[in-house]
Amino acid sequence: MTFDRFFSSAALVMRESAIRRMGALGARIPDLISFAPGYPDPVLFPWDTLRDAAADLLSGQDPAALQYGATRGYRPLIETLGTLLEARGIRSTFEERIVTSGSQQGLDLVARLLIDPGDVILVELPTYTGAISAFNNVRASLVGVPQEADGIDIEALDRTFERLRAEGRRVRFLYLVPNFQNPTGLLIGLDKRRRLLEWADRQDVVIVEDDPYGDLYFPDSAGPADTRPLKADDTSGRVIYLSSFSKTLAPGLRTAWVVAPEAVVQKLDLVKQAADICTGGLDQRLVHRAVTAGVLVTEGDRLRAHYQRKRTVMERALAREIGDLVTWPAPRGGFFLWVTLPAGLNADAVLTRALQASVSFVTGTAFFVDGSGHDTLRLSFSQPADDRIDEGIARLGRAIREEIDAQLAGGRSSADSGTSVPRG
Amino acid sequence: MTFDRFFSSAALVMRESAIRRMGALGARIPDLISFAPGYPDPVLFPWDTLRDAAADLLSGQDPAALQYGATRGYRPLIETLGTLLEARGIRSTFEERIVTSGSQQGLDLVARLLIDPGDVILVELPTYTGAISAFNNVRASLVGVPQEADGIDIEALDRTFERLRAEGRRVRFLYLVPNFQNPTGLLIGLDKRRRLLEWADRQDVVIVEDDPYGDLYFPDSAGPADTRPLKADDTSGRVIYLSSFSKTLAPGLRTAWVVAPEAVVQKLDLVKQAADICTGGLDQRLVHRAVTAGVLVTEGDRLRAHYQRKRTVMERALAREIGDLVTWPAPRGGFFLWVTLPAGLNADAVLTRALQASVSFVTGTAFFVDGSGHDTLRLSFSQPADDRIDEGIARLGRAIREEIDAQLAGGRSSADSGTSVPRG
Repeated sequence: MTFDRFFSSAALVMRESAIRRMGALGARIPDLISFAPGYPDPVLFPWDTLRDAAADLLSGQDPAALQYGATRGYRPLIETLGTLLEARGIRSTFEERIVTSGSQQGLDLVARLLIDPGDVILVELPTYTGAISAFNNVRASLVGVPQEADGIDIEALDRTFERLRAEGRRVRFLYLVPNFQNPTGLLIGLDKRRRLLEWADRQDVVIVEDDPYGDLYFPDSAGPADTRPLKADDTSGRVIYLSSFSKTLAPGLRTAWVVAPEAVVQKLDLVKQAADICTGGLDQRLVHRAVTAGVLVTEGDRLRAHYQRKRTVMERALAREIGDLVTWPAPRGGFFLWVTLPAGLNADAVLTRALQASVSFVTGTAFFVDGSGHDTLRLSFSQPADDRIDEGIARLGRAIREEIDAQLAGGRSSADSGTSVPRG
Repeated sequence: MTFDRFFSSAALVMRESAIRRMGALGARIPDLISFAPGYPDPVLFPWDTLRDAAADLLSGQDPAALQYGATRGYRPLIETLGTLLEARGIRSTFEERIVTSGSQQGLDLVARLLIDPGDVILVELPTYTGAISAFNNVRASLVGVPQEADGIDIEALDRTFERLRAEGRRVRFLYLVPNFQNPTGLLIGLDKRRRLLEWADRQDVVIVEDDPYGDLYFPDSAGPADTRPLKADDTSGRVIYLSSFSKTLAPGLRTAWVVAPEAVVQKLDLVKQAADICTGGLDQRLVHRAVTAGVLVTEGDRLRAHYQRKRTVMERALAREIGDLVTWPAPRGGFFLWVTLPAGLNADAVLTRALQASVSFVTGTAFFVDGSGHDTLRLSFSQPADDRIDEGIARLGRAIREEIDAQLAGGRSSADSGTSVPRG
């Protein structure tokens, strides 16, 4: 029998994540160098701390370590979050925090809590694919706003908002990744953050602030003051703030959190109850042990220096191999370089050639909700080793030059060749 | 500012789980003996096996142990599931299996995949509250079907289905917990399982089969043959089967799975991508190690004997303390006794007195989608130690007798006293 007639309307519009799909595809390519996923570098995971903590937690002394736990999260961890948040300038009560199974769950729960089918969500152009999927899956209508060098264009934002209001559309929230945005690496300027809060107050719009990368600034070009969350200055209580341990400890522990007004957290608790009952108890305790052991503090500088160096390796390789052809804004933190190809070159066509050369990335279109971005691509430098970054960018350079040559030769790009290319 | 105007229609109808609420409430009562949650007994968790496995997995040898993983699940675990399923009579391909973050996530993903607002889901009367919440949260309309001693009443099921069809309602699926149902402990008879499959084929209805307790039969009254899943005989591919390691290994590892036709699993993968990216990588590997170490086989008999003995302890205590007042069907497996109070007695009123006496349970109404069940309650014998079961049932017996005396004395029950009583 076919199941098609049993699927919900939401199921019919669900799309595969381009990033996840690149992962499945890449698994079949020998010697692949992948710049596709935003994976942290596992050499930085606090293996020893976690191993010692696990040995203790699994001694059986505390039966709760493997039992069902409170939906809101492991109480000592929720308390610890308060300290982490204060270091970012965010004051919060215990009741304003909830642990989630990764920030992706935070996005999903927020989406289900705030979005009715057809509601408009305002997002940056481009924006994080995981957010696009979470909002799409509750049948939101995503409307993009262009970015400038210091982040989202507030004038364009206001024009878009006014137009939507005039059309009678309901805007549910503005989704922002202010710190080292995925995929562009852009950092919203401090003055613009203030103006965004003023704008949200004036227009009575909720802001969903996604901050997985704030701690990962590059010391040569940014500091903690540059990454101060909007939530820190949210006097009216309209910012829902998400952050995660996935980039600073380890993503396999699936532990993240949301800070929001108590009424929102109460509802998040309800929707999480039915979504997965609770986040893993061992995972939460491991995270709590690592944080209270001071790992984030003692290892923070090492993490920042590590990713800064990798960025430098990739930027130098890009400049060396294809500096004459492509451009990218210099990121001041995070995991990504956002590359614009020469005019007329299509990233899908380049990807086809790149995969043949055993190097991968995510095409920019996956991050645009308006169908644009065909000449852009996202390169993640966070996971591959330095020599692999060099080799991978060399391969990518050859793929780009081949594609240019092919277009000059016959006006025919590999995108026309029928080769299967993943789309976001 | 108030957030109410920003919440989605779904958020406005979300309700707190009575079981979760009992947990929060119970945390504030000293010396509470809780028969409320269906928690497994932590003395049975395979602590030593998991501790050794964690030491090895966290050595840093395999970076993937703490990295993001495939949404579908950890490949060796998915392969191992095939063997477990075969032991239950279910043949499946790799592509028909997906790991979920607990079975609650399985229910949630299935709900989102199959249900449009207003669609009818057929459920047993009473049924599992977690399923009620998951289906409610996508705004399903739940319609209950009574149960007989050998499970759901098929004639009533068919009448209900025909009535709904005549009304032009769309029935999306039938949700069943065939093995030691939560909350009643009932076991669907083998002949009825066959007839349910025939009925589903004839009426072209999807069945969602939830089987967390199938391995936990009581050897004195049931065996593996009695728990053969409907999925094992699903020749037309209309059964979506959920099971879990929460009751047989440990719930804190949040690892469960769904077996379904490949087209369904592909969609479950999509919705899970945006729900939490992947289930915890360490958790999945710990489960895989425990299963391949043979824990389910070597410890299976011990688990079954343990819960059988606890059931006996609770049944004897009930017979001793209030055997003259209450009735319950003898469960042949699982975690629960389903108690019916004397005529006219209200479980909410009894709960108020019980909490004052430091004993708790879940009132039956939480499990009924039709508002009935006021004279029923669920007692879980799985977690408390034997002497606590004895003491707790003694307290419950006093609470019930006090409530009867109060009603006889003044026609006034404690339910009228204004004391806050949790409702499902």
